[in-house]
Amino acid sequence: MIPAPYLLYLGHSDDEIGIKTSRGLATFRAGDCVGELRHDDCPLSLGLPRLTIEQAVASGARTLVLGIANAGGVLGEALIRDALAAIAAGLHVASGLHSRLRDEPRLARAAAEAGVTLFDVRDPPADLPVGNGLRRAGLRLLTVGTDCSVGKMYATLALRDAMRARGLSADFRATGQTGILIAGEGLPLDAVIADFLSGAIETLSPARHDGGWDLIEGQGSLFHPSFAGVSTGLLHGAQPDALVLCHDPARVGMRGLPHCPLPDLAECLDANLRVARLTNPAVRAVGIALNTVKLDDAAARALCAATGERLGLPCTDPYRFGGDPIVDWILQCFAPSTPATTASR
Amino acid sequence: MIPAPYLLYLGHSDDEIGIKTSRGLATFRAGDCVGELRHDDCPLSLGLPRLTIEQAVASGARTLVLGIANAGGVLGEALIRDALAAIAAGLHVASGLHSRLRDEPRLARAAAEAGVTLFDVRDPPADLPVGNGLRRAGLRLLTVGTDCSVGKMYATLALRDAMRARGLSADFRATGQTGILIAGEGLPLDAVIADFLSGAIETLSPARHDGGWDLIEGQGSLFHPSFAGVSTGLLHGAQPDALVLCHDPARVGMRGLPHCPLPDLAECLDANLRVARLTNPAVRAVGIALNTVKLDDAAARALCAATGERLGLPCTDPYRFGGDPIVDWILQCFAPSTPATTASR
Repeated sequence: MIPAPYLLYLGHSDDEIGIKTSRGLATFRAGDCVGELRHDDCPLSLGLPRLTIEQAVASGARTLVLGIANAGGVLGEALIRDALAAIAAGLHVASGLHSRLRDEPRLARAAAEAGVTLFDVRDPPADLPVGNGLRRAGLRLLTVGTDCSVGKMYATLALRDAMRARGLSADFRATGQTGILIAGEGLPLDAVIADFLSGAIETLSPARHDGGWDLIEGQGSLFHPSFAGVSTGLLHGAQPDALVLCHDPARVGMRGLPHCPLPDLAECLDANLRVARLTNPAVRAVGIALNTVKLDDAAARALCAATGERLGLPCTDPYRFGGDPIVDWILQCFAPSTPATTASR
Repeated sequence: MIPAPYLLYLGHSDDEIGIKTSRGLATFRAGDCVGELRHDDCPLSLGLPRLTIEQAVASGARTLVLGIANAGGVLGEALIRDALAAIAAGLHVASGLHSRLRDEPRLARAAAEAGVTLFDVRDPPADLPVGNGLRRAGLRLLTVGTDCSVGKMYATLALRDAMRARGLSADFRATGQTGILIAGEGLPLDAVIADFLSGAIETLSPARHDGGWDLIEGQGSLFHPSFAGVSTGLLHGAQPDALVLCHDPARVGMRGLPHCPLPDLAECLDANLRVARLTNPAVRAVGIALNTVKLDDAAARALCAATGERLGLPCTDPYRFGGDPIVDWILQCFAPSTPATTASR
C-alpha cells in the first residue's frame, strides 16, 4: 500500500481531464490528501490547500502522487524535476504513467539514496494468462462509455455504494491508475500486453459464489480509435451480466481526437451488447450514467429523464444523484427467483 | 537480420498449428532452411531433413529458430535445454515466444560466452505512439479471420504476389512472429502494450503516396474471446480500404477454446466491416480466402465457388490457387478513374 497522506500533483497542467487521477484521489480519498502541488502557470485546482513540497512535508504528507495523465503516459522533464525535489524532501513518489519511475535513472538513484519508494501503479502483474472465455460464477456489472474519461469510474464507485446501501455484497474492480490508487488494488488494463487483455480481466474478477456483484471499471470506448482494443478485451474478459453506458453530454469530440464525433448513445449501447454477447449471451443493458457536472440541478435532472425515456432504461448521474434508479432496475432484472420479463433491451 | 540458413525447431510438439512458425519459414523461406530438429515423440514433420544440432551445423546452419507457439508464448524447460545445446554448438537462436530468450539467465550467459546472438522477434519497438485515427494516404488491405491461425498470413503473402504479378506496387506488413521471420521486418502486434495497439499499426503502415498497396497481416478474430482486442486495435490502426475474410473450413471450434463455436462467415464479415468503418467509412470487403489444405482439388474448388456465390464476393484459396479472383475484383473496386458501382456489400 502507498503510504498516506498524499500531496497531489497538478504541475503545469492546464487540462481538466489530464489531472483526473489527482482529482479522483481528492474526491474519493479526501481524508488522505493534504494538499495540491501546482506551478504558477497551472490554472486548475482541486480545492485543496496549495502547498510547496516543504509545506506538504510539514503537513504530514508521505507520498507525492503524480496524478496527471497525457496520451502515451510519458514522464516529462518537469515531472522528473518535481519528483526529484519531493524525494530529496523525504517523500515517496507514486505514478500511474506508462513510463515507469524506476526506469528513470535519476529517480531510481535518488530514491535509493533517500530511502524512499517509487510506486509504479501502472505495472500489470507478471504471468497473466491468456483469456479462456469460459463462463464463471458470479454477477458482474461493467461500465462502458461513449468516450474515454466520461465518468465510468465515478459511476462504478457510486453504483457500488448504492448496492451496498441495499445490503448487497458489491466490490469495485479497478482497471485504471486512478481507480487503483483509490481502491488500493486493481489491474492497470491499458498497460497489459495485448495478448493478455481478456485474461487479465478474468484474473481481476474471478468466479464469485456469494451472490454478490463485481462492479468492473470500464476503459476507453469501442468508438475511440486509439483504445477500442482495450475496451473489447475488457468486454470479453468481464463477460458482464449487466452493462451501464456512461456519457458526458458536454463532450463535443472524442477525447484527444476532436476530428472524431461521439457515437449516438443507442448505437454505442448496441455495439457494446453485441461485443459482450460473445462471452455472455445473456448480457443486458441496465442503465445510463450521465456525467452532469457542467449542468445545474434542474438541467441535469431533465437531461437524465429525457435520455432515460429515449433509451428505455433508467438514467441518472449516479455520482451526483445516487445510483438508486439503476440499482432498482438491476434488482428487478436479476432477482434470484423471479426473472424479469419486461426487458427493454 | 537473423543469419541464415536456419535449423527449424519442432521439439516435442504434437500440435500441427503450434509449429506454424517453423512451417511458415519452411514454406516461404525454403531456400534458407537446412533441416528440422524434432525429438522422437514429435509426430510432425515439415518435410525437411531431420537433423541433430551437430548435423545442422555441419550442413551450414547458423541459427536455430524456435518456431513453435503455445498459448501465452512460454519458454519451457525443454526449449531452454535444446537452445543451450544449440548455443554450445555455435548457433544463434531466434524465438517468437512472448517469453524473451534474453530474460532466461542461462541462455543469456551461454550466448555471451559463445559469442552468439539471441533474437527475440516478439519485441515490439519502444516509444510507439497512441493511435490518432487520422486518415492517411495510401491503399491498405487487411486480412481478417473467423479464428486465429486460419491462413491470414498465407493469404496476405499470396495476394501480395498476385498484385505484384500484375505490376502493382504491393508490400507485406507483418504483424506476427512468423510473418516477421519470413519478411525480415514487421511488428509483433500481440506483444504491444494494449494502449498502443492502433498506434503500432499506424506506425507499421504509414502514409503511402506511390499508388501501391500495403497488405497487412491480420491477427486473431473479432470472435475469439482471448484475442479480439488485438483484432480490434488492428482494424482501427490499419484503417483498411479492403478486407479479405480468411477461414479454415476444417475448423470445428475456436483455436484453443473448443467450447466456442466459429462465427458464420457473413456475420463475421459484417462485424469486421462495422469495426473498420470507425477509421475508414469507405472500407469494403473484397474477397474470401479459404484454407483448403485438408480438401482435394475438386472439393476445394467447389467449396470456394459455393462460398463465393453465397457471400457475393470472389472466393479462392489464394495460396493454393493464386489470388487472381480477388485481385481482379480489387482492381475493379479501386480503379483510379472508374470507381466500381456494383459493390455487393
